[in-house]
This record gives sequence, C-alpha cells and structure tokens, in this order.
Amino acid sequence: MSAQKRFFLFAVCLIFSAWGLRAAGRSAKAADSPSGQVRAYVANNKAAILQEFAGLLSIPNLASDQENIRRNAARIVSMLQQRGVEARLLELPGAPPYVYGELRVPGATRTVAWYAHYDGQPVDPAQWATKPWTPVLRDGPLGEGEKEIPLAGATGPFGDEWRIFARSASDDKAPIMAMLAALDALRAAGGSPSVNLKFFFEGEEEAGSPHLQAAFEKYAGVLHADAWLLCDGPVHQSRRLQLYFGARGVTDAELTVYGSMRVLHSGHYGNWAPNPAMLLAHLLAGLRDPDGAIRIPGYYDDVRPLTAEENQALDAVPAVEPQLRAELGLDWTEGHGQSLSRLIAMPAINLRGIESGHVGAKTQNAIPTEATASLDFRLVPDQTPEKVRAKFEAYLREQGYFLVSEAPDAEARKTHPKIIRLRWGPGYPAGRTSLSLPFSRAVITAMEGASGTPVIKMPTLGGSVPMYLFQQMLKAPVIGLPIVNHDNNQHAANENLRLKNLWDGIEVFAVLFARLGHDWQ
Amino acid sequence: MSAQKRFFLFAVCLIFSAWGLRAAGRSAKAADSPSGQVRAYVANNKAAILQEFAGLLSIPNLASDQENIRRNAARIVSMLQQRGVEARLLELPGAPPYVYGELRVPGATRTVAWYAHYDGQPVDPAQWATKPWTPVLRDGPLGEGEKEIPLAGATGPFGDEWRIFARSASDDKAPIMAMLAALDALRAAGGSPSVNLKFFFEGEEEAGSPHLQAAFEKYAGVLHADAWLLCDGPVHQSRRLQLYFGARGVTDAELTVYGSMRVLHSGHYGNWAPNPAMLLAHLLAGLRDPDGAIRIPGYYDDVRPLTAEENQALDAVPAVEPQLRAELGLDWTEGHGQSLSRLIAMPAINLRGIESGHVGAKTQNAIPTEATASLDFRLVPDQTPEKVRAKFEAYLREQGYFLVSEAPDAEARKTHPKIIRLRWGPGYPAGRTSLSLPFSRAVITAMEGASGTPVIKMPTLGGSVPMYLFQQMLKAPVIGLPIVNHDNNQHAANENLRLKNLWDGIEVFAVLFARLGHDWQ
Repeated sequence: MSAQKRFFLFAVCLIFSAWGLRAAGRSAKAADSPSGQVRAYVANNKAAILQEFAGLLSIPNLASDQENIRRNAARIVSMLQQRGVEARLLELPGAPPYVYGELRVPGATRTVAWYAHYDGQPVDPAQWATKPWTPVLRDGPLGEGEKEIPLAGATGPFGDEWRIFARSASDDKAPIMAMLAALDALRAAGGSPSVNLKFFFEGEEEAGSPHLQAAFEKYAGVLHADAWLLCDGPVHQSRRLQLYFGARGVTDAELTVYGSMRVLHSGHYGNWAPNPAMLLAHLLAGLRDPDGAIRIPGYYDDVRPLTAEENQALDAVPAVEPQLRAELGLDWTEGHGQSLSRLIAMPAINLRGIESGHVGAKTQNAIPTEATASLDFRLVPDQTPEKVRAKFEAYLREQGYFLVSEAPDAEARKTHPKIIRLRWGPGYPAGRTSLSLPFSRAVITAMEGASGTPVIKMPTLGGSVPMYLFQQMLKAPVIGLPIVNHDNNQHAANENLRLKNLWDGIEVFAVLFARLGHDWQ
Repeated sequence: MSAQKRFFLFAVCLIFSAWGLRAAGRSAKAADSPSGQVRAYVANNKAAILQEFAGLLSIPNLASDQENIRRNAARIVSMLQQRGVEARLLELPGAPPYVYGELRVPGATRTVAWYAHYDGQPVDPAQWATKPWTPVLRDGPLGEGEKEIPLAGATGPFGDEWRIFARSASDDKAPIMAMLAALDALRAAGGSPSVNLKFFFEGEEEAGSPHLQAAFEKYAGVLHADAWLLCDGPVHQSRRLQLYFGARGVTDAELTVYGSMRVLHSGHYGNWAPNPAMLLAHLLAGLRDPDGAIRIPGYYDDVRPLTAEENQALDAVPAVEPQLRAELGLDWTEGHGQSLSRLIAMPAINLRGIESGHVGAKTQNAIPTEATASLDFRLVPDQTPEKVRAKFEAYLREQGYFLVSEAPDAEARKTHPKIIRLRWGPGYPAGRTSLSLPFSRAVITAMEGASGTPVIKMPTLGGSVPMYLFQQMLKAPVIGLPIVNHDNNQHAANENLRLKNLWDGIEVFAVLFARLGHDWQ
C-alpha cells in the first residue's frame, strides 16, 4: 500500500468516525459505529425483512408475463413509497414498466443512481424442488441433508447459511430488498444518506433489455445522476465483496439445421439422408475448440488489451479455482489452466442448449428432421453485437449454408442444398469503467473503510449487464456492486439467496448511502 | 434375359396355369387365374379386412407394456385359430410371447415359415395428428388436403391411395393381417397352400429382439422349416415389390458427457467451466464426417465385399433418388452421389437424438450440466456388435474419456477429468442369403410369374431384422419379403399403411402359399 493511499484511508476514517459519533449522539442504543448500528437493526428485524421479501418473490416475474410483471412493479413502487421515496412507473410502449424512485437529501451535492432489475429468467418447473414463485426457506443448500423451515410466521433465529429459494431470490430482487431495508436501517441508526438517491429498476433485463436504450433516451433528464451503481450479479466465489468495473456484452442466437421434411427410418435411409443433428455437431465443433478458444477467423481482432492497472487488479483476485472445482465436481476446466477471472475477461461462445430427435425412453431408430442449437456470445471491449453477428454468419456461409429467418418451405429447399434458420436475440456491447476515476475511488474507500478489508476489484464481470448504456447514453461512470452468493443457481432451477448475503448487502448499501457523499473527493 | 431363364419362366408358367385351371374348375365364379380370383376376393372383402385390421391396431403394442402386448398376442392367436391354423403362444421368461401357428398341408413336402412382429416403436403422442392406437382412415397422406373417412361401418369403395393411420399399421402388423387374409382369399378362390406353413410372430422386435436367440434355442424343433420368409420393412420406393436377401445388423448406444454438477451462469463461468454439449459436439463430429463416412480407425476392416451377382442386382435397382429428394425436400444427400441402395449396403452410424440444456422458449443463459446423444450403428457382414462396440469405446478413450455405466458421483469426478456414461442396447450382426439358392430362385420365380414383372432384388435391406439368427440357429435360408409402402412414417409419428399395399400384400402372400411348392426346384 502506498503512503499516499495510507493517508487517504486515514482521512476517510476520520470522516467516518465523525459521522459515526454524530449518529451515535442521536440514539441512546447506538452501537460503536453506523455499521454496527445497521447490523444491530438488521439482527433485530430479520423476520420482518424476510416476510416483505417473500411477498415480493411470490409474484411471477417473467418479462413476457405482462400482468404479473406489472404486479411486481406496483409492489415495488408501494415499497418505495412506504419509505418516503417519491416513486412512479416510467412507461415505454411494449416494455414492462421501469420503477423509478427519488430521495432528495438536504445539503447533498451529488446524486447517485442505483440500478437493479425485478424480472427473472424463464423457469422449468419440473426441475425445481419446490415451485419457483413459492418462496421456501431451507437451512442450507439443496441436496446436503437440508431441512425446510416454514417461512410464514418464522421468528428466528435465522442461520447465516440458511437460504431462501425462489426465482429471482438472488437475480435480481435481492438488491432491491436490500436497498430498501438499508434505508430503514440507516434511519433506525439515526443516520441519513449523504447523496441524493435515485432508484431505477428494470423489468426485462433477462429478456436482453431490448428497450433500455429507448428508456434512457426518453427519460435522460429524470435519470440524470453523477454516477451509477449497478446492483446485479454475485459476489466473489471467495464470498468476499467485489466491485466490477465492467461487464461483458452479450448477444444470442438460435440456429436450426434441416434434414428430410419427414422423419425417416435410420436403417432404410441412414448414410444417404442428411442427418441434421450430425451436421449441427460439425458446425458447433468448428465454432470453438473443446478448451473454449473460438475458431471463427478474426474473432479476437476487436479485443482491447487490459491496462496495467486492470492486470494488477486481476493478479490480486483470490484463487478460487480449487474450491470451485471441488464444489462443481470438475477435474478439468477450459482455458488451459488460466484463472477464471482472466478467462471471463475474454470473449466466449456458450452452447446453451441443443435438441434434435429423441434420447432416453423416447429414442426412435429414426433420422431427425431438424436440429436446433442455442448459443450465447459474451463480448468484451471493443467487440459489438453487429461485428460478432457478421463474423458468425460469415462462418456459417463458409460452411456452405444458406441463411434464412423462417423455416424453409419445399421451394426454398429445392434451391439451397444446406439451410440454416438463424434467429438473433437482442444484444449489447461490453462496458468498462476506469478504476482510477474519483467515483471509483470513493466507492472503494467507503467499502474498505467500513469493512476494514480490501474489496476485490474486477475489471470486468463475466455476466452481462448493459453498463455501456449508462456510459454512452447517461454520460455517467458506472460500477457494479453485487451482493448475492455465487452459488445461487442463478438462471437455473432452485435459485436461492444465502441469508448472510442479504444481511451483508443491507449493511453495504447503508454504508454507501451514508458515506459516498463524504468519500467522493 | 438368358435363354435358360426364359425357358425356366416358361416352365413355371405352365405349372401355374395348370394350378389355375384346377382352381378355376372348383368355382363357377372363378376369374382367369388364381391371382385374379384372389384379387376379386380382396375387392369384395375390403371392408371386412379393414375392420379386422383396425381391431388389431387398436391394441397398444409397446414391447414394454406387458398387459397390452399379451392382448395383442391373444388376439392374433384367435385370428389364426379362426382360420383353422393350429395356434398357441411360445413363452420365454421375461419376453413378450411369440405367437406360433402351424398349417399342415396334405401332400406338401416342404415347410415354409413366415416371420413378422406385432410390437411397435415407442410413440410421442404430441407429434401425432390423431392417437397412435386409434386407427384412422384418410383419403391420402397427411398434409396434402386429405379427408378423414369414418372407419366404423365404412363400406367402400376404398381408394387405392387411401391410408390407415396407427402405430404398426405398417411396421409390422400389416403383414400379419395380409397373411391371414391371403389364406381366406386362397381358400375362397378354391386353392390351398402348396407347402406346409408355419407362422412365427415376435413381440419385441422394436426393442431389439433381446430374447429371439433364446427362443430359437428352446423352440428349434417347433420352428424347424426348409426356409423362412421375413415379412418386415417397406417395398421399394418405386412402389415395386422387392425381395431382400440380407439385412443390416444393428446395435445402439446412449452416451452422456458431464460438466459441472450444477447449472452455471454462462456469463460468470463461460470459458472456464466445461460445456458438455460442446464436448459432445466434438466427439460426434470426430465420429463421422458430414457425408456419413465413419472416421473411427479401422471401422471398415470387417466389411465383406459384394459379390458380382449382388453388384448386378444393385445395378438393376431403379433410381429413386430424384423422386425421393423431391418428396423429402432434400437438395443434398450424404455419400457423394452414390445410390441409396449402395449406401445402405455399407455400415452407418446414425445420430438418433441429442439433448442438452434448453432451446426455444425455455432457453437459459446457462452452461448445461450434461449432454446426451443416442446413436444407432447399422452393421453389414462381417461386422459384429462386439467388434463395433470395441472400436467405438476405443475411439472414446482415445479422446480422453473414462467410460462408466452409471452417472459419476463426486468421488469419480475427482479422479477422471472427462467422463462418459455409455450404455449399449442389445444388438445383432447382419445376415445375407445367396441370390442363387434354390429357395431364392423359387421365390423370385413365383412372384415374377404371377405379376409378369421383374421383382427388385436387394442384396441387403437398410433396416435391421435379425436374419442372421434364422441362418445361424435354425439352419435355414431366409429372404425378406416386405409389402408396406416406403412412405409410411415407420418408427415416427403418424405411421400409416397405403391401402393398395395391403391388397397387393394379400395377393403376393396368396400366390406364394399356392406356388412355392411347385416352383421350388
């Protein structure tokens, strides 16, 4: 640590202590620090926080489910208003409403805006141990002899390792709940925010945020802020808090390869009739090697090299690979031994799913008529969805395929020997914020000052959040601050939130509300 | 045609005519020939034949459905007995019963046995236009503006291109129905079989005939015959009758590749966590090229070359590829332009199905935990399932995989970087009968004599029927005689039988019953 940095932290501690003493003066029951007071508030109010959270989790939240997505938005508006936050819906035709809330703080000179999303990934109920939108409390992860604890009327004590299971328990309703509870906690501790607060909660993030750009255009004035904090994604696998200064961009595609128009007996036609599943396997195998390296010519041309500061930050990331390998049952990983944090700073193509014919009990001695694969592409600066799409399409054409957007009819089949139906989802590029901006330093200082431990600084998150839009459209720096556990089954069945992450999340939000205005030099 | 062959056919016609005159003498209404008389009988009894057939088709016939498979067997025994055939069940522990029937003909010196199977392929009811075991009559193939004709009480006239839809309408209850109606027709025409007849109907062919060898061992005496006719599979795509003198053998495998023990977010772990679907795509792509050529080292070593006679027969097979390509919507086929009949005389590996993660509406931004593929292997002489399995397993091991038969636990995952669960189904080798055997010539002669047109002689059928067992265990020559239409959706949804194929099938069986004893020189 440099001498300069030591002095900086010392100064910050002075400010923090002064604020702490002021807060303590207001409350007879005050603990030694605002952090301590917040922690005490949380400890005494876990049951009420969990009940309110369970209510929010019980509303189905697929972006495509218009009725229920609006019920979520209305509930969150009401939760904000109960805390004196001026809240309303920002509407855009065809989009789930954006929940907007504003809390002006007398004397505050800066405004910090907080992003989260209230929609969730699609669910496959058959894969869930209990219903996705019926929150269930268990005393540990699934499959480790865990017990279910009745949630209704639960009074505690609540184990730190207990988990609440529901779609979006982690991704991404947890930060919304934590921010609101942080306001309660801060006030109960006699404190108040040090910056003006704006809350902005999206309802179609898991659908690829197709209207976010338009929303930012329309509501640029309303959403003006000095900086943004994006509260999405998980903490580090070491369970330590992390900040992410960038996020990979994303686009996705579904491709279908066609064989015979009707299912054929594999004995009578096998070796002559094309097998679309086998053709697809060849296409996919040509796309990337088993280690993850992408084989599309020129695919890495647009990758911006990491800066020295980013490389340093990556070197300081704790090694979690041995723990993860044990936890996930992996004796082999992609990337030739490079660290997870370095690998997610690179472009990736992920095969999300593949389907053709039948396996298992439904297996037939037949040649399938079509084969479908679903891919997601993770982008880094300076890749763009447009460039990635062009390169992928060129690759498919080089393999001899004619690209269409609808299933080909008999006529189209006559003129093209090999046809792929290709459907692109929405997408957006990566974003990255410099680690050395004043706002970046303020957030780091506030968090490290309150916890006394270094925060992990990730130059980029592996997952995708549309950070680029905040930078490009709202002209503000943006940093990611996740609070949920990494082992949360996010995007899959049995999604869950570890309770300790909720309590810690409330605390970190309360600390940032209280300190950001002071630490921002 | 050689002079010798012309004389041979002339002699056959004489015998046939003599038999025809004798039959004609017995019936005042007799047509010019037994063929004609049979045809007349069929024309007058279509409604009754269809009603009896529909009754048989309405009994669900999965080999694994013990109760219903026995109902099928009992129904067929009763249908045989109604025709004076001595019929009973041959039992073997754990196997659906074999239906056996015997009709001794006074004066006959030879015995010909007839094989068919009464079980059907598994069904995916969601894919069927109507229920698989509710027979439905339509005036043409599906999807061509066809009308449904109420089957109950239908009196005709019945169009030749009409079809009856049900599981096993073609594969393989049609030959059973046709043989029984052929007996009726022959008797109505005043004729009688020229050979002793044995009927043997299996109930688990679509499950891979796992007990057939044991049945042949146990009932070798009962099943003794001078020759066998296997009535399974479709006629030629030109709609002309064909005989097949061999059939490809088969074995099948299901393989599962494993990734992380839990589903992972593709953004946070993509590029590091193994993607089992992608690993599987690489394995499959390495297995065979897009044109069908198998890449496993030494895979073709055991392939027995075709004889000159077999090559001649293949050269005489009508080209059906242009018609098939139009019908199936294929502008490209495997095998570098070789004919279908030549390609199915070679080994094939077919990818029956592949499944991992999700596509379509259920897509998730996740890395799947496992990926499964189902393969069938078609074998030719002198490949055996054992040799093929060994070569395939060696290929998987060369790719770095450890093979297990059950899903690996956490312990197994620690010691092996890449694991495949491999499950082999039952299997059997190919069979092939010489085209020049006296029985082979007798069957050809009878059929060509009755129809006046050359029959197509296929050295091998692409599909698999256990012909090798008849040769090896029962020491008898065996020839395949299929009657159903090629475009029958066999093994898939909406399986159907074209009515003309049923009427023609009855006729050809009646002719063979009547003539085989005379034509067998």
